[in-house]
Amino acid sequence: MSDRLLYLPLGGAGEIGMNCYVYGYGPAGSERYIVVDLGVTFPSMDGTPGVDLIFADIAWLVERKDRIDAIFITHAHEDHVGAVGHLWPRLGAPIYARAFTAHLARLKFEEHGHDELQIKTVSKWPDTTTVGAFTVGFLPISHSIPESSALVIDTPAGRVIHTGDFKLDETPVVGEAFDRALWEEVSKDGVKAMVCDSTNVFSPNPGRSESEVIGPLTELIAGLDGMVAATTFASNIARVKTLAVAGAQAGRSVVLLGRAMRRMITAAIETGIISDFPATVSPENATDIPRENLMLLTTGSQGEHRAATAQLSRGKYLGLKFAAGDTMIFSSKTIPGNEVSVGRIVNAFSEMDVNVISDQDGLFHVSGHANRPDLATLHEVVKPQVVIPMHGEHRHLREHAKLAESNGFQAVVAPNGVCLDLAGNAPRVVEYVETGRTYLDGSIQIGAMDGIVRDRIRMAMNGLIVATVIIEDNEPLGDCWCEVRGLPEVGLSRAPLVDVLEEDVNQFLMRAKPKTLSDDGKLEEEMRRIIRKSTHEETGKKPEVQIVISRLSN
Amino acid sequence: MSDRLLYLPLGGAGEIGMNCYVYGYGPAGSERYIVVDLGVTFPSMDGTPGVDLIFADIAWLVERKDRIDAIFITHAHEDHVGAVGHLWPRLGAPIYARAFTAHLARLKFEEHGHDELQIKTVSKWPDTTTVGAFTVGFLPISHSIPESSALVIDTPAGRVIHTGDFKLDETPVVGEAFDRALWEEVSKDGVKAMVCDSTNVFSPNPGRSESEVIGPLTELIAGLDGMVAATTFASNIARVKTLAVAGAQAGRSVVLLGRAMRRMITAAIETGIISDFPATVSPENATDIPRENLMLLTTGSQGEHRAATAQLSRGKYLGLKFAAGDTMIFSSKTIPGNEVSVGRIVNAFSEMDVNVISDQDGLFHVSGHANRPDLATLHEVVKPQVVIPMHGEHRHLREHAKLAESNGFQAVVAPNGVCLDLAGNAPRVVEYVETGRTYLDGSIQIGAMDGIVRDRIRMAMNGLIVATVIIEDNEPLGDCWCEVRGLPEVGLSRAPLVDVLEEDVNQFLMRAKPKTLSDDGKLEEEMRRIIRKSTHEETGKKPEVQIVISRLSN
Repeated sequence: MSDRLLYLPLGGAGEIGMNCYVYGYGPAGSERYIVVDLGVTFPSMDGTPGVDLIFADIAWLVERKDRIDAIFITHAHEDHVGAVGHLWPRLGAPIYARAFTAHLARLKFEEHGHDELQIKTVSKWPDTTTVGAFTVGFLPISHSIPESSALVIDTPAGRVIHTGDFKLDETPVVGEAFDRALWEEVSKDGVKAMVCDSTNVFSPNPGRSESEVIGPLTELIAGLDGMVAATTFASNIARVKTLAVAGAQAGRSVVLLGRAMRRMITAAIETGIISDFPATVSPENATDIPRENLMLLTTGSQGEHRAATAQLSRGKYLGLKFAAGDTMIFSSKTIPGNEVSVGRIVNAFSEMDVNVISDQDGLFHVSGHANRPDLATLHEVVKPQVVIPMHGEHRHLREHAKLAESNGFQAVVAPNGVCLDLAGNAPRVVEYVETGRTYLDGSIQIGAMDGIVRDRIRMAMNGLIVATVIIEDNEPLGDCWCEVRGLPEVGLSRAPLVDVLEEDVNQFLMRAKPKTLSDDGKLEEEMRRIIRKSTHEETGKKPEVQIVISRLSN
Repeated sequence: MSDRLLYLPLGGAGEIGMNCYVYGYGPAGSERYIVVDLGVTFPSMDGTPGVDLIFADIAWLVERKDRIDAIFITHAHEDHVGAVGHLWPRLGAPIYARAFTAHLARLKFEEHGHDELQIKTVSKWPDTTTVGAFTVGFLPISHSIPESSALVIDTPAGRVIHTGDFKLDETPVVGEAFDRALWEEVSKDGVKAMVCDSTNVFSPNPGRSESEVIGPLTELIAGLDGMVAATTFASNIARVKTLAVAGAQAGRSVVLLGRAMRRMITAAIETGIISDFPATVSPENATDIPRENLMLLTTGSQGEHRAATAQLSRGKYLGLKFAAGDTMIFSSKTIPGNEVSVGRIVNAFSEMDVNVISDQDGLFHVSGHANRPDLATLHEVVKPQVVIPMHGEHRHLREHAKLAESNGFQAVVAPNGVCLDLAGNAPRVVEYVETGRTYLDGSIQIGAMDGIVRDRIRMAMNGLIVATVIIEDNEPLGDCWCEVRGLPEVGLSRAPLVDVLEEDVNQFLMRAKPKTLSDDGKLEEEMRRIIRKSTHEETGKKPEVQIVISRLSN
């Protein structure tokens, strides 16, 4: 029996974010594995209230922990590296990444108290790392963060290219340009499969270079009065640099606001990514500088409630405060789902008479991902035997596969959990693996299907009633006691809701037979039914009910 | 002292939706009022979990109920008419509307058991209705629902035009075109103030006519195989008709799916708005028709979970079911905040291999609101002494005022609660009225600031712990009992969380002094503190805590 070359997405092929892919090689059932990326996705009140972070469920990997030889991280965005601190102890394999990515991963390990020596810094292609049957090289590609790389994964069954996130930018301002000749060289002897970023497949026009926003942003900032602030993803070092340089050129002192902003710029300087970042002043010193000479670079372009931008929209932040006539620049795209939070901030600025410049007409922002024509270009450059779309919702994967097929390539849609064997001439589904999500809830990892978050959502939708009763020798001792949370205090009868409920339950308890009163399950079921029914009559809502029965015995 | 002409927005000038405006005329403190629109806005899990509908808080009006002479409704969109059934009993004044709007308002009155005679059908301008000092005419204007009207409000202090929602469409497919000459005629003797729709002020290009989507939609539908469905707002009668006609022309039988779709088309036919709508077949009969001959028109273009489109994305709906190769058309714009729900549906269709056509490039949808250049056009047509932007978030109102000012008009931003006197030469702020929101929660109206929804959100974010203890003669009788909802069952110590909490509380109870045990407040406070602290140590979360103390006495 021949060896298999497996591809299995556990996260990222069914959503934008939470990237986690597995490759395996060896005889069926005893393959050895490498993991590509361990990312997070972010919770929302709608669906995951109270949750702190979301990871791919890695139970399948944990069961095969002794067969995992390495973890490779393509780049330092949170949706690719964000879970390393949380999930690494359950996997235990060494992590390989380029310097900038490794630097940020080590900060996460430090926070978690893991052994930082487990993170190995590697050089870019043509250097490679061999683990088991896999030889893996980091092939530079442009993206909105430094040192993004595709992985060139060589196996006895052939070469696979895993693109990671990318765009085709030949003038990326910071970091490595897309090097078409190098990619052609790497691909010339045949690529078995290209596993390829799909996020922007619905964007019809060719992507634009990061360098195209320098002019408009510089011109914009040069013409502004008052204090100026700009927000973008802190990890977009090129953009942050462009904004900082434009501010400095306009005679402004640059202030970095927000932890991520300071951490990212520090990381970029320490790893040699940038050496010519304008001098910055601390927020404390900034308060002594005339406001028309200030350029703030702030975190929170997606409307995050606790980030610097949102705090400034609510008032003072580290002594700095907007005034009428100041300007806030959003050099960013609002990710779907964040429109309401971003809108809230823009309205708050509007109330202060602060001018908000957003990305109208794409003047002040370009995407970090390959658009539809760029994807087609990379297919042509690499000419893989098969295109496997990854990183996208189902609609993106499907559209990307259709695009590849329309240009004569073989393509296969493999959402999370679909395990493909790539060893033969055509990919073959060999298994459907159960996948899911793990929630970081406070300090505990819980399963998405554990029912914990479901219970929270139910309390939020329906309110809660707590009813306690004391039973002594199968007789109610005193009255039932009800407490109401998240429900109107007074219902349609205009009497307090708790009074109505207590009355109804007490009526029931007085008439209940010993057989009911002696049976906790039965008693609880009846009380719950009465409470739900009466609450529904009074308020139109069917609440969650928590019954507490205390039994005393002599 | 001279009479005042008051303008007071209670809703709609601070959000898109929930329109409710007040005009007053008379001596200060004894003005008589008319109300324009009583609309709703929609709740979300993020912010208003479990809430059914949101209205403007009308407490200010209710306090002056005896001075309200009439309620005028500009058009039948829910954000203008949706609250009439819920709020009318608290106001009691007669409602005036044109036939289509009145028809739909009466259906709401019928549901609520109110007196339908309180809804008066009025004819369009030049007919007018006089109530007190106000003479009000319904001036036709194009929008995405039939019989939309601006209000021409004549008072002894001059003429005010309240635009309602509008676009400048000279070929609106169904209903009345924008009649520039008529508007000029109405405005020629001077307009004191134009209170004007602001929703699309950030859309830079002139709006396009409803008639422009006929060609692309007809061509699209003619070329499709398999079953075809299309979704749009049911109230957009013109669009629904275009889709139905295109389907019929392509040899398809039209099926209306969803309550709103049937109700709106019925209302349009009954009120004479359309007379040539293609014949429809019922869902039951549709199952006998070959799928390639079906054209479904479905509710739920915004991803509403229970609407027809969402149900079809999850499987069968009234016996109809999508199959690979079928097509779903979104002839609509996704309202900000709904991207995630719409995306979920599109992905579900993608998994079924159903082709989704969305509004790429505006081919299959046009907006119902006036864009920036159209607003400037209407300012020029009406030439009011002052432009007062309404219907928009703060940023829209501010931008609209800046637009008017840049063209030489006086403008004033008056968000919800700002009461202007328009009687003089320039508007003057005479009062800041406290405004807010009322939530329909089940069958009860609650205040947004009542804390009820806040408590629900807290339970959703933090989980809940219920702890009960029985105290007899200032001694704990038995152990404390804890129940956990929406929290991990096991914390960092790997022991069940309830066991840890009960142990900690029992330790405390054993050592507590009679002074503490005899004082409910003190006991509760201490127990809550212990439970929050222990839960935080175990899980990193600080839960909501409900303490129930039962006291027995001999």
